[in-house]
Amino acid sequence: MTGNIFGNNFVLVSFGESHGICVGAVVDGCPAGLKLSEKDIQRELDRRRPGQNSLTSPRSEADEVEILSGVFDGYTTGAPICMVVWNRDVDSSKYETVRYQPRPGHADYTAGIRYGGFNDYRGGGRFSGRVTASYVMAGAIAKKLLRELLNVEILAHTTEIGGIKAGRRSLEEIRQAENNPVRCADPEAAKQMIKRIEEVRAEKDSVGGAIQCIVLNVPAGLGDPVFNTLEGDLSKALYAIPAVKSVEFGSGTDAARMTGSEHNDPFALRDGKVVTLSNYAGGILGGVSNGMPITCRVTIKPTASIGKPQRTVDLRNMKETAIEIEGRHDPCIVPRVVPVVEAMVALVIVDHAISANLIPRVLERKI
Amino acid sequence: MTGNIFGNNFVLVSFGESHGICVGAVVDGCPAGLKLSEKDIQRELDRRRPGQNSLTSPRSEADEVEILSGVFDGYTTGAPICMVVWNRDVDSSKYETVRYQPRPGHADYTAGIRYGGFNDYRGGGRFSGRVTASYVMAGAIAKKLLRELLNVEILAHTTEIGGIKAGRRSLEEIRQAENNPVRCADPEAAKQMIKRIEEVRAEKDSVGGAIQCIVLNVPAGLGDPVFNTLEGDLSKALYAIPAVKSVEFGSGTDAARMTGSEHNDPFALRDGKVVTLSNYAGGILGGVSNGMPITCRVTIKPTASIGKPQRTVDLRNMKETAIEIEGRHDPCIVPRVVPVVEAMVALVIVDHAISANLIPRVLERKI
Amino acid sequence: MTGNIFGNNFVLVSFGESHGICVGAVVDGCPAGLKLSEKDIQRELDRRRPGQNSLTSPRSEADEVEILSGVFDGYTTGAPICMVVWNRDVDSSKYETVRYQPRPGHADYTAGIRYGGFNDYRGGGRFSGRVTASYVMAGAIAKKLLRELLNVEILAHTTEIGGIKAGRRSLEEIRQAENNPVRCADPEAAKQMIKRIEEVRAEKDSVGGAIQCIVLNVPAGLGDPVFNTLEGDLSKALYAIPAVKSVEFGSGTDAARMTGSEHNDPFALRDGKVVTLSNYAGGILGGVSNGMPITCRVTIKPTASIGKPQRTVDLRNMKETAIEIEGRHDPCIVPRVVPVVEAMVALVIVDHAISANLIPRVLERKI
Amino acid sequence: MTGNIFGNNFVLVSFGESHGICVGAVVDGCPAGLKLSEKDIQRELDRRRPGQNSLTSPRSEADEVEILSGVFDGYTTGAPICMVVWNRDVDSSKYETVRYQPRPGHADYTAGIRYGGFNDYRGGGRFSGRVTASYVMAGAIAKKLLRELLNVEILAHTTEIGGIKAGRRSLEEIRQAENNPVRCADPEAAKQMIKRIEEVRAEKDSVGGAIQCIVLNVPAGLGDPVFNTLEGDLSKALYAIPAVKSVEFGSGTDAARMTGSEHNDPFALRDGKVVTLSNYAGGILGGVSNGMPITCRVTIKPTASIGKPQRTVDLRNMKETAIEIEGRHDPCIVPRVVPVVEAMVALVIVDHAISANLIPRVLERKI
Repeated sequence: MTGNIFGNNFVLVSFGESHGICVGAVVDGCPAGLKLSEKDIQRELDRRRPGQNSLTSPRSEADEVEILSGVFDGYTTGAPICMVVWNRDVDSSKYETVRYQPRPGHADYTAGIRYGGFNDYRGGGRFSGRVTASYVMAGAIAKKLLRELLNVEILAHTTEIGGIKAGRRSLEEIRQAENNPVRCADPEAAKQMIKRIEEVRAEKDSVGGAIQCIVLNVPAGLGDPVFNTLEGDLSKALYAIPAVKSVEFGSGTDAARMTGSEHNDPFALRDGKVVTLSNYAGGILGGVSNGMPITCRVTIKPTASIGKPQRTVDLRNMKETAIEIEGRHDPCIVPRVVPVVEAMVALVIVDHAISANLIPRVLERKI
Repeated sequence: MTGNIFGNNFVLVSFGESHGICVGAVVDGCPAGLKLSEKDIQRELDRRRPGQNSLTSPRSEADEVEILSGVFDGYTTGAPICMVVWNRDVDSSKYETVRYQPRPGHADYTAGIRYGGFNDYRGGGRFSGRVTASYVMAGAIAKKLLRELLNVEILAHTTEIGGIKAGRRSLEEIRQAENNPVRCADPEAAKQMIKRIEEVRAEKDSVGGAIQCIVLNVPAGLGDPVFNTLEGDLSKALYAIPAVKSVEFGSGTDAARMTGSEHNDPFALRDGKVVTLSNYAGGILGGVSNGMPITCRVTIKPTASIGKPQRTVDLRNMKETAIEIEGRHDPCIVPRVVPVVEAMVALVIVDHAISANLIPRVLERKI
Repeated sequence: MTGNIFGNNFVLVSFGESHGICVGAVVDGCPAGLKLSEKDIQRELDRRRPGQNSLTSPRSEADEVEILSGVFDGYTTGAPICMVVWNRDVDSSKYETVRYQPRPGHADYTAGIRYGGFNDYRGGGRFSGRVTASYVMAGAIAKKLLRELLNVEILAHTTEIGGIKAGRRSLEEIRQAENNPVRCADPEAAKQMIKRIEEVRAEKDSVGGAIQCIVLNVPAGLGDPVFNTLEGDLSKALYAIPAVKSVEFGSGTDAARMTGSEHNDPFALRDGKVVTLSNYAGGILGGVSNGMPITCRVTIKPTASIGKPQRTVDLRNMKETAIEIEGRHDPCIVPRVVPVVEAMVALVIVDHAISANLIPRVLERKI
Repeated sequence: MTGNIFGNNFVLVSFGESHGICVGAVVDGCPAGLKLSEKDIQRELDRRRPGQNSLTSPRSEADEVEILSGVFDGYTTGAPICMVVWNRDVDSSKYETVRYQPRPGHADYTAGIRYGGFNDYRGGGRFSGRVTASYVMAGAIAKKLLRELLNVEILAHTTEIGGIKAGRRSLEEIRQAENNPVRCADPEAAKQMIKRIEEVRAEKDSVGGAIQCIVLNVPAGLGDPVFNTLEGDLSKALYAIPAVKSVEFGSGTDAARMTGSEHNDPFALRDGKVVTLSNYAGGILGGVSNGMPITCRVTIKPTASIGKPQRTVDLRNMKETAIEIEGRHDPCIVPRVVPVVEAMVALVIVDHAISANLIPRVLERKI
């Protein structure tokens, strides 16, 4: 399958460019009979859009979603759902040179090679973080399905920014992470993160960080070994987010330093239900969910766009040169990636839930 | 697509069980005209098979491959290539209880739920590491294609075991890693790793570790954004290996603590070719190869099979209980995973190379 | 893959409804560097749109295409191309009853079951012939690629309507078929067909017919046996057109009455090139093109919408009843299906041409 | 997806060659918990194998199936099921020349181009009808699932051979078609067909024919418009059978000569159930099953292998020449295609039934 189509049973087709007419998504495979309106989508888009607060890009986009198909009389019809946000505040004046003087850390160079220089380079085109608006639109539907049919809750939150790590927090505190600009469940760490972001912005630099995602109430038994494991499908989904450099489950990289007797999660009974007493597995064994919370973590690299002078190459005359990037950017993209992580996780879980017959093709019969 | 089929253009179908008749692979999409014999496959299988040295499982399997189709007169025909290794040294006596008393850290519990208790539980069945022999068979063909047509070299090696980390080594030393039982390029660290493995074996315990994989000479321009990124496809492939807990590219988890000015790899010219002066990107920008070495890292959890007593649940009477696992196991699986990592990486790279028209459907014309 | 996505390498995603906001298509996998404007698409859409002449539905739709993504500076970028035609002349007043009183020969009944009554029933919704506008938009790009890169010519024409068969005509005459309202290469037969259509319209009835499609200059060697044969992929594509009841290749149903010595096309040499002296194979042997013209034929059933009273069932009270269908319909849809057949054939051929490395990912390099 | 893999949810991977070691199939996606043994497969294979009676090829193959994986303790495990029949009676002596002097009507020429001359040409290799044994093995499982879970019955039978057409017969008579060597439900026609076959054999010639397939008890609502229609998927499946030249549903080619008032099947109630009073639709409306019997028809071309002298080209010296084909062939392949048609139809119906949640992933829970 081609590169802009994701999923098997609940499929996201992404289209649109950062500085083109729109960014859009087609969702194919959504069950019929789900109550759905623009509001359901908008809520999630608002979490991702720029200009939310002083830490994010000043590009001013209302990112208002319009549903073009697949919804009738307030319910999904089972037909493909096309959704778009129209680009309004486009300023492409700063991008004339990027096709010839590729920005370090950006996809300018590889995009030029991959598409022979025909790619829309304005604002990064298809490689812009703005394209993740299409993930969020589709993910909003997936999240709604999961919540309403299976009571699945997806909680992503910032755990690290610029070297500052959040302390371990309760689920209740994690649910409140949305309330601060960095989406960190540890208010003390959040303050330092904000300070750190403001520092690097002043230095025309940027910082990276990490996001954890917890998925509650996933039924045991999801996952299609040996290749369509939950980890495999989730990691592929998460690597579709620009700037992701690692994907871990459960113990993650710590597993390298543990013994089997430490790492093996003992099985036990709680209220007549099989549980594990620890969760180094991250809720997945053999690629299949075990009923415990799924926990994963992604590392986000520092924003590639920085104002500091950088070395690059001019491809017209094949000479080394230096550039200073103008434009409107986030000194730290981590907080805005949080809803995108949730969206991609939701897409994978709903796809597997459909495969497991846990979500019917028609939610309730009208006729 | 169902769970035992991987790839788009060069496809691996995996079948067989640990204690069944065989483990096998069908490769569909291999170009016609590749010189291929059992020897090409056997070389890679021998690197993975048990009983190579004192650190690995004493299960004695020659793992001799037999090619059943798709090769004629010494060349691939373009038809599907079916390969099998027949299971010989099967001792299933120890597995009667695992379906009712799931082993912590194993897939026994989730397999039982996913397949309703019909799964072949002997030796882990489809969830056994033995199934990766099918990956290695297919990967051997992929590696040969990449080497002969594109001069691509894939080098995996152990970088960490049980808390002992290898020092950074040169490519030449990494190519020699194969020479020690832990496949570590740092001979000093290798000795300590071996000692550590022997210690945990004596304690009826196990340890995990980490493997780095470097891919040299990958042409720039491979990868199909936004979903079929190289990172996405590689990570999905690597998570098909049992025990993988993290997949990182380039800077990996370190990116969380770096600034943009540190992390952005500057472009420069070397011998008239565009290169980057550092490689925190891991050879991939925007999901597309940039011509630099691709570097990724996986964490392998400690072997789940340990002799120490462990807590579990008896599913027949739904009571908590304790078990001690018998059977033949590796106290550290990391060294045997090295060739499996190479195989999965090769499958992904060859798939993308075909998609990029870099590998023709017929290698040379006979008629 | 879900039902509204077609193809492997050159993929059409269809969305939109007959009486919704729009009908649209996303094409993913189009090479970068193809000169493309709305005009290229419009030309083909104009062949399909209603109201072309007195024989077609009076619904007045300009069907003006708008390209929303994937084209920049006049060339395709390699990114997904989203195209829409906005619905303008929508009159849904006549469709209130069809969800409860399904029209014979229509999809009303099966759509209701498949989507639980949530389907947009207005004008047939997703089951309307209007949805084929999305096929034509994507097919226009495919045709342009095939013509410009491989000199492939796709010629569909009406061979039968309401029992009137066209005589066998030369390629040159077939190229002129476009010039009469029924798109029949035999002008004498065309006149009778028009007369027949006017008759059945006066009787509030409809007629069916047949379309032949000839594809010239398809390189030998396209097709992926044993399942992705050219016939298999073409027939699946053609059955996506509403009203198709048969798909034949070469001799088609006549093969049942022939002997092997008659049917086997002898190989011979013409201008140093291998040809066959007859073409009962329809240009395909073993699922693979042989370099001769590909010939196929589809039968189109009579338009299901007729004004005559018909028996049906009222699903509200589960009683038999009778209906008379109002609305704006074509008494014979065959001529308007001709460009749709060409579009679907083009999509399949271009997909296989990409798979055979005959169409590069970048048509020419700009950088 | 590559060419030897068919299906989405219940997937057939075909491998093996006519004169190689074996012909085999891997089925991935079969639910766990189906009682299955070699006998279930063998019954269907026996209907297809050569040497059944005097009308078929004298090649003597027991075609005994061996299950290599995916079945444990008498039940399917949910893991991929690999099945093989080993080739025994191989006589490749007659095929040395076919690679250079392609046989008219065969795939020799196109196979040579497609695979650059590396294809196994012995006995037609992958293009041999023998490869359909893999379809039958997989189809046997699909048929069993459909029969046991949904009471679906699939009945194919010969309706025409060499110009002799069977009269219309009752379902009961069609069920008896298996009892004569040509599998024709009309005993009188069967006798003439046999006579006709013997005639053409004496003349070193061959004849074609037609097969109808009726599928009973398919639940309404199967099919995924607009591309994965039942007709589309069935026709693609049927065109995977060598020698098929047409695929029709319901009225088929007759629809071209009917009016809407004749062709539209009126809805009515019978025993409180919605039915249609005629079935020109062939049980499918809008690509979705309507609960009536699915009826389709395929035309089979005359066997390409004939003893009469034929014209061809020698590819070594590029000169025209003549050949006489030796070897062991069926003068009419139609009767042996009957079980293959049933197999392919079963594969498609089971795939759609899984997609519609009508077949669970585990048939009954053991744990």
